[in-house]
Amino acid sequence: MYPESLNNLIESFKMLPGIGEKTAERLAFSILESDTDNVEFFADNLKNIQKKIKKCKICNNLTETEICSICNDKYRDNKTLCVVEDVKSLFLFEKMGMFKGVYHVLSGLISPLDGINPEDIGLGELLSRIEKESYDEIIFAFKPSVEGETTSLYIKKLLEGKKIRITRLASGLPMGADIEYLDSLTLERALNDRKEVA
Amino acid sequence: MYPESLNNLIESFKMLPGIGEKTAERLAFSILESDTDNVEFFADNLKNIQKKIKKCKICNNLTETEICSICNDKYRDNKTLCVVEDVKSLFLFEKMGMFKGVYHVLSGLISPLDGINPEDIGLGELLSRIEKESYDEIIFAFKPSVEGETTSLYIKKLLEGKKIRITRLASGLPMGADIEYLDSLTLERALNDRKEVA
Repeated sequence: MYPESLNNLIESFKMLPGIGEKTAERLAFSILESDTDNVEFFADNLKNIQKKIKKCKICNNLTETEICSICNDKYRDNKTLCVVEDVKSLFLFEKMGMFKGVYHVLSGLISPLDGINPEDIGLGELLSRIEKESYDEIIFAFKPSVEGETTSLYIKKLLEGKKIRITRLASGLPMGADIEYLDSLTLERALNDRKEVA
Repeated sequence: MYPESLNNLIESFKMLPGIGEKTAERLAFSILESDTDNVEFFADNLKNIQKKIKKCKICNNLTETEICSICNDKYRDNKTLCVVEDVKSLFLFEKMGMFKGVYHVLSGLISPLDGINPEDIGLGELLSRIEKESYDEIIFAFKPSVEGETTSLYIKKLLEGKKIRITRLASGLPMGADIEYLDSLTLERALNDRKEVA
């Protein structure tokens, strides 16, 4: 019923998470009425993003260069490593602005029920990085959940015998909460209040 | 804090209506993880849409050709003209599927308080079309509001003396409702129950 090109644009919007038919139509109509330069800019951004953005060779953070700006920053504390489950957690930490160490981004958490085993989340890279560098402390900043606990304990066990302080974010965060939606203050308190993995 | 290209994409999403910071971030991240072909398709659709879509020379419906598929359809009833305030109303009528006449799309409704006067909504085109063709009936399908009433009465006055049945959608639709969000049944009843402009 819509002209084909409009239909295609609506279909494209519908592929985005949380965008249904009505919203997709509304967004597509708004594109028709938008400033052409803005629409071109949007299209170019879409076209380039997957080519431009890659994973940092060191920490898996998103970056347009080989090494991300955090790993490249000499003023960061290279002795404190914060291990996160995804880049969203990293960006949330950076928004909070209190953490001055470096990061390592895993590909999720161990979850045998979902078929996600230790070898699926990039633990190999993490371990060889820890072998090479000498960290004073490794902080696990996972969401407070069974998967988070499992992953913490698993890595802790792999590092047994090493002289590294191993900590995790303080709980006090409600179980099942998504790190992405926490406010900075809660996160900051959890960081300051971190405790040894028992 | 995000790489520049990711930041740009987030900014582009934020320019869409009803998309805030958090949602824009979520959508941009989902693009990173999407199938590359789908993202290319999305970008191409965005790039082409404003070039491809134009207004039908006859009725102002959106179309990729000179004349839209409705005006081109010999099986439509060319004696009944439905005047709508925007293309969204037209598409809603077509979704309902009960109306077999043709349309004329105005650029909104007369609204002196917002500085929108009769000459701003394309009444000239409508009148010259009515002069040229011979319609048995003209239906005003505006939203039930002061602006809708004003526009109906204004056009009705311009057509004074002509032998055309002039009707409007039955009210029963709540005042201030947006035509876009009505269900098809309500709209169908309003169409069947249309009454003469008093």
